[in-house]
Amino acid sequence: MRAIWAELVGTFCLVFFAVGAAVYGIEGIGFTGVAFAFGLVLFALAYAIGPISGCHVNPAVTLGALVTGRVDIGTAVGYWIAQFVGGIAGAALIKFMTTAGDVTDQTGALGANDYGATVNLTGAIVIEALLTFLLVFTVLAVTSKKNATPVAGAAIGLVLAIIHLVGIPLTGTSVNPARSLGPALFAGGAPLEHVWVFIAAPLVGGLLAAAVQPWLYGREPKDDETDAETAAAL
Amino acid sequence: MRAIWAELVGTFCLVFFAVGAAVYGIEGIGFTGVAFAFGLVLFALAYAIGPISGCHVNPAVTLGALVTGRVDIGTAVGYWIAQFVGGIAGAALIKFMTTAGDVTDQTGALGANDYGATVNLTGAIVIEALLTFLLVFTVLAVTSKKNATPVAGAAIGLVLAIIHLVGIPLTGTSVNPARSLGPALFAGGAPLEHVWVFIAAPLVGGLLAAAVQPWLYGREPKDDETDAETAAAL
Amino acid sequence: MRAIWAELVGTFCLVFFAVGAAVYGIEGIGFTGVAFAFGLVLFALAYAIGPISGCHVNPAVTLGALVTGRVDIGTAVGYWIAQFVGGIAGAALIKFMTTAGDVTDQTGALGANDYGATVNLTGAIVIEALLTFLLVFTVLAVTSKKNATPVAGAAIGLVLAIIHLVGIPLTGTSVNPARSLGPALFAGGAPLEHVWVFIAAPLVGGLLAAAVQPWLYGREPKDDETDAETAAAL
Amino acid sequence: MRAIWAELVGTFCLVFFAVGAAVYGIEGIGFTGVAFAFGLVLFALAYAIGPISGCHVNPAVTLGALVTGRVDIGTAVGYWIAQFVGGIAGAALIKFMTTAGDVTDQTGALGANDYGATVNLTGAIVIEALLTFLLVFTVLAVTSKKNATPVAGAAIGLVLAIIHLVGIPLTGTSVNPARSLGPALFAGGAPLEHVWVFIAAPLVGGLLAAAVQPWLYGREPKDDETDAETAAAL
Repeated sequence: MRAIWAELVGTFCLVFFAVGAAVYGIEGIGFTGVAFAFGLVLFALAYAIGPISGCHVNPAVTLGALVTGRVDIGTAVGYWIAQFVGGIAGAALIKFMTTAGDVTDQTGALGANDYGATVNLTGAIVIEALLTFLLVFTVLAVTSKKNATPVAGAAIGLVLAIIHLVGIPLTGTSVNPARSLGPALFAGGAPLEHVWVFIAAPLVGGLLAAAVQPWLYGREPKDDETDAETAAAL
Repeated sequence: MRAIWAELVGTFCLVFFAVGAAVYGIEGIGFTGVAFAFGLVLFALAYAIGPISGCHVNPAVTLGALVTGRVDIGTAVGYWIAQFVGGIAGAALIKFMTTAGDVTDQTGALGANDYGATVNLTGAIVIEALLTFLLVFTVLAVTSKKNATPVAGAAIGLVLAIIHLVGIPLTGTSVNPARSLGPALFAGGAPLEHVWVFIAAPLVGGLLAAAVQPWLYGREPKDDETDAETAAAL
Repeated sequence: MRAIWAELVGTFCLVFFAVGAAVYGIEGIGFTGVAFAFGLVLFALAYAIGPISGCHVNPAVTLGALVTGRVDIGTAVGYWIAQFVGGIAGAALIKFMTTAGDVTDQTGALGANDYGATVNLTGAIVIEALLTFLLVFTVLAVTSKKNATPVAGAAIGLVLAIIHLVGIPLTGTSVNPARSLGPALFAGGAPLEHVWVFIAAPLVGGLLAAAVQPWLYGREPKDDETDAETAAAL
Repeated sequence: MRAIWAELVGTFCLVFFAVGAAVYGIEGIGFTGVAFAFGLVLFALAYAIGPISGCHVNPAVTLGALVTGRVDIGTAVGYWIAQFVGGIAGAALIKFMTTAGDVTDQTGALGANDYGATVNLTGAIVIEALLTFLLVFTVLAVTSKKNATPVAGAAIGLVLAIIHLVGIPLTGTSVNPARSLGPALFAGGAPLEHVWVFIAAPLVGGLLAAAVQPWLYGREPKDDETDAETAAAL
């Protein structure tokens, strides 16, 4: 149960702080600043809540973890609910800051994702699926039992930064259905009509990663298996 | 006693170098450059003085550490005095550079925090409390005995960078009463009248983190407890 | 065989995401954003596919590894084919995004490398050879058996970022024949005529690194050699 | 002897690549890009040549190491010669690129340090001494035998980045006599007349760090001393 709460708190933090950085300050910090906001908050969360829940904070990551047998379906459903609730709460507080806090929304749409201005629907689907592939593939690879490294959380955080460097000029970068739904609910209009793209395409990317990572890595060792048994099974 | 001195030297460095980066060069390095100045000096200090004092360099971090039983009240009081003295010394030297060193203050107020231009009082309190929550939660989580990682100091430093990416366009970002008091004393005027916000709100955020971190992590193992006893107690 | 596929997937990701970041968004993210795109995608890949193939994703790195005896000629040839195929596939998908996805190419040449605007042919050869020397020297040094560090992948990724900070204003930065060939094939014109420079100069730089690293480090210990034997042989 | 050569190659790389990033591209990458160029090349070098020579690549670091007993006088003299030769060679190649390579020098003075435009002589001496204090203190602290961390090289590299974020708007940032002498020799004029400041002030900062670090850390354990003996001696 603590893991579920950790996912809720973590997704709230990801959305409130990183989407908030765009809403309050993109004119000052630029695309590069926003990209690092996403990357560095995930870097910190990976170490702060990773030991509790694995720090998915993203339904596409949880889908990849489910398909590759890292979590069971009960855990996945709990994580998904927590992630969407956390994302909506984060967006609500961003909205609160623009009303009660008198802050100007520099994105014009509460940081919601959309397509049409610099990329069409086809391009948006392709780029979101591929960017999410890179994220979920990295997460599954660096957290594989065959690949224990203390730098895993750094790699996960910083890959989200490069993903935003690529995607902000196109769709604003979702790669995370929970990051997209919250702001779209409060923004309404086109972002809400189009939000299905930013839920569906990341999930497709997550599935693709869940196919490729085990194929490159071979199967994961079981918990009660010795190293020698693992080696023999490869 | 070396720990007290380490906190004084560390807070001096944080204020002089990171606030100084804004004062001497924000027109050239931008908000993103200033955000990295704060993050990277804390990254370095976390490894340079962390082994001596834990590298709090921030009264809100020390408050969180006190409430969660990481330090005792005597240590906390010593740290607080050292942090405020170090912050004031750092601000004094920034001032010295603008007079004896003939450097123009590009922030117009010696890098002091304030609200009113882009966020009102309510918004300033909310954002400072939440940004400090993220900082202190990260510090308490990554330095938990259940979470020993060599990357802890990197996570702490880089979370301060993202915190500044969010907060510079709003309040300039305090999240640290010692970072705010020094520059406000030398700037005077509105920043000094409003400095209570940047002392009180970070402390509230630190308390919030001190409530949430142990709730997600469960209690810390005692020093003389075996791993098995810890597991049994959970 | 999984290693070959990992090199193909990895080089595809390096080219599609990092060159793509320039093509879709260099006007918004600037040279510094593009430099971090290259650096951070390699940082992530170093940990994600490093355990499978060593994450060369660059024919000049593979050449350095071959000459220093880290891989055999059969592996090297397999890696080279995979790297060029992956790079061409990445460039094809960047092209697809600009046509089917309706995205404007902000570089005007699909992110291909060239010289002539800010540096002449001599300068381009010198800078590409030296920048590749720094990359391959770093890779060979931090992955030496005498230098096992969990931070190796971070150093490799971030050295590619600094390499791009130096080289983007000059040639756009190749240091990787596979990164250059794909975009040049689709761009045609001068970049395709000049692509030999960005294949030859990086290979020269890789050879230089393969000479200097073993000279500074001394020979690598053999796999079945004890530490004492290694020390005795030095 | 390999250590001497490593210092020469390392200082050459630091000067050629990081000062070169400013000379070839500061208009495109900005102060923040140049700051990361210095930081990230030192990050990479710390892991690439650290195991050979300790990666001082800076006479002020070597002075701090000498005074704190980390290296003997013979080694220090060898390092100093190598560092100045490497720095001059790096500057010569930057110059070569601007002539034979037809590259425009965007700094107007081959990236040499100077004062007068934004800071006077007093301010330049104070800031250079303090910035060098931060660098050398960080190096001595994170490489202390009491503080072994795999992240040491990252802290050292990134502290150089923040040092440049502070100092580029003022003096361009030396903190390294070998980084300053080379470009000044080729630039001539005021930078060469003033180069003594950028040799003397960093050495003062290094001495200051060599006083403060052992005072905060207590004396270093001897090589043949057990942990218990060290503890007893404290």
